[in-house]
Amino acid sequence: MILYNEKFVTDDTIIQIEDRGYQFGDGVYEVIRIYNGKCFELDNHLERMVSSARKIKLSLPYSIFEIKKNLMELVNKEEILDGKIYIQITRGKSVRKHHLPKEPSPILIAYVEELPRPFKKIQNGVNAILSEDIRWTRCDIKSLNLLGNVLLKQEAKDNNCEEAILHRNKIITEGSSTNVFIVKNSKIQTHPENNFILNGITRQKIINIAHNNNFIISEEAFTIEELLNADEVFITSTTLELIPIIKVDNKVIGNGFPGTTTQKFQNIFNEEISKI
Amino acid sequence: MILYNEKFVTDDTIIQIEDRGYQFGDGVYEVIRIYNGKCFELDNHLERMVSSARKIKLSLPYSIFEIKKNLMELVNKEEILDGKIYIQITRGKSVRKHHLPKEPSPILIAYVEELPRPFKKIQNGVNAILSEDIRWTRCDIKSLNLLGNVLLKQEAKDNNCEEAILHRNKIITEGSSTNVFIVKNSKIQTHPENNFILNGITRQKIINIAHNNNFIISEEAFTIEELLNADEVFITSTTLELIPIIKVDNKVIGNGFPGTTTQKFQNIFNEEISKI
Repeated sequence: MILYNEKFVTDDTIIQIEDRGYQFGDGVYEVIRIYNGKCFELDNHLERMVSSARKIKLSLPYSIFEIKKNLMELVNKEEILDGKIYIQITRGKSVRKHHLPKEPSPILIAYVEELPRPFKKIQNGVNAILSEDIRWTRCDIKSLNLLGNVLLKQEAKDNNCEEAILHRNKIITEGSSTNVFIVKNSKIQTHPENNFILNGITRQKIINIAHNNNFIISEEAFTIEELLNADEVFITSTTLELIPIIKVDNKVIGNGFPGTTTQKFQNIFNEEISKI
Repeated sequence: MILYNEKFVTDDTIIQIEDRGYQFGDGVYEVIRIYNGKCFELDNHLERMVSSARKIKLSLPYSIFEIKKNLMELVNKEEILDGKIYIQITRGKSVRKHHLPKEPSPILIAYVEELPRPFKKIQNGVNAILSEDIRWTRCDIKSLNLLGNVLLKQEAKDNNCEEAILHRNKIITEGSSTNVFIVKNSKIQTHPENNFILNGITRQKIINIAHNNNFIISEEAFTIEELLNADEVFITSTTLELIPIIKVDNKVIGNGFPGTTTQKFQNIFNEEISKI
């Protein structure tokens, strides 16, 4: 079942070759977690989608209230316990020219898929590589221009790692599809919210959890060296949740096992999930 | 008429929602000029497409010889004098994951459109703005990740200008869809071929023309200040050919009219076109 603008359809061959999403990556998207058949942080994802759309001057095809209603209907139609919603909005079909069409006809598609929680990675942690951040300088926009992220993720995979942790001028920005946190002497640190990172919904949740549970957290950039010498490193994303990083470029982080601060956050995050 | 992999079809609703071109901009493209019903620089465009594809580890759906044959058949089917071929190849449909699918099914689409030569702009020149180059650092790949270019081109249009001339750390790289040349004391200069620019087919042609006609040309980066103080500035692209820039950010370039060196290049370029 696919939500195509306001209709529910089953055929997936519904995109025109001149859809600006196909020729320019001219669109935005969100991935929303479904736990126990219910949407997690749906409002925050939709709010960010509206914000991404505004940043690229993209009008929604219809109101965000209707979009929310349709997404919830989509989730109800499919009987999925743990899964995700994928939703994207492009600027639609238009004769191919770089500048924006005067009368765009945006195209929204959304669908739901099963996605088991990554328990093994959550428990054991994963390895990462360091890579130069080759992406554009508007990473705050959750756009369909993901080729940089794709190539970086593949580089990680080619090195038998889960994630590529990115840096600009020796400063860690984020992962190819995650945000990055370090813990040193019980202080937690992550890159500030600006144009170099996507302000992840899970990232925001971690910051809230820290504030509500008297952890010391600082949105302050850190260097490659600080990362490698941290007591703990973890990454966050909607699909991966909180995953400990136990090795970076073959350098063992801390004692090489998921750290206690990371585990505390995982436990509190787990409670939040079980509450929905 | 649309070339869809090896078939000629008429329906343009042929793309699946999980085509990686639609969800990641995971693909490459070319725009090839048709003059007098014939392809201009077709081999060079196809060679660059193969190179872009290799850089993102994308396999072509079938051989470049067959692709060339099909494109020429496409041009023959449509009775267009001055026009363009648009061709793109994506990594095709795959369950949405960042890293590369093990067994990709690439999708090629191509079509032909009328496109009159921009005589007025060629003769009178156009205005440009300066903008910070916000794009990724792999601009040498002609990929479908064009949202940066789109936003920059729109910024130019919002300022009643034809093009946004881009800079990184005060160094001019290229335009949002063009290469940039300056002329100072009869010496021509353009950004060297590296990861910060697309090595335009027209750019390469200009360099060849310069070498064959005893112009002094240097592939050497220049600053914003050098641009603003140049005797002449011009931009090149497959669709725009050679266009004089007569004003940048409201600063008049040279005497405010298309320069004599630019015009000499335009004349030689014109001769090349008329020879095909």
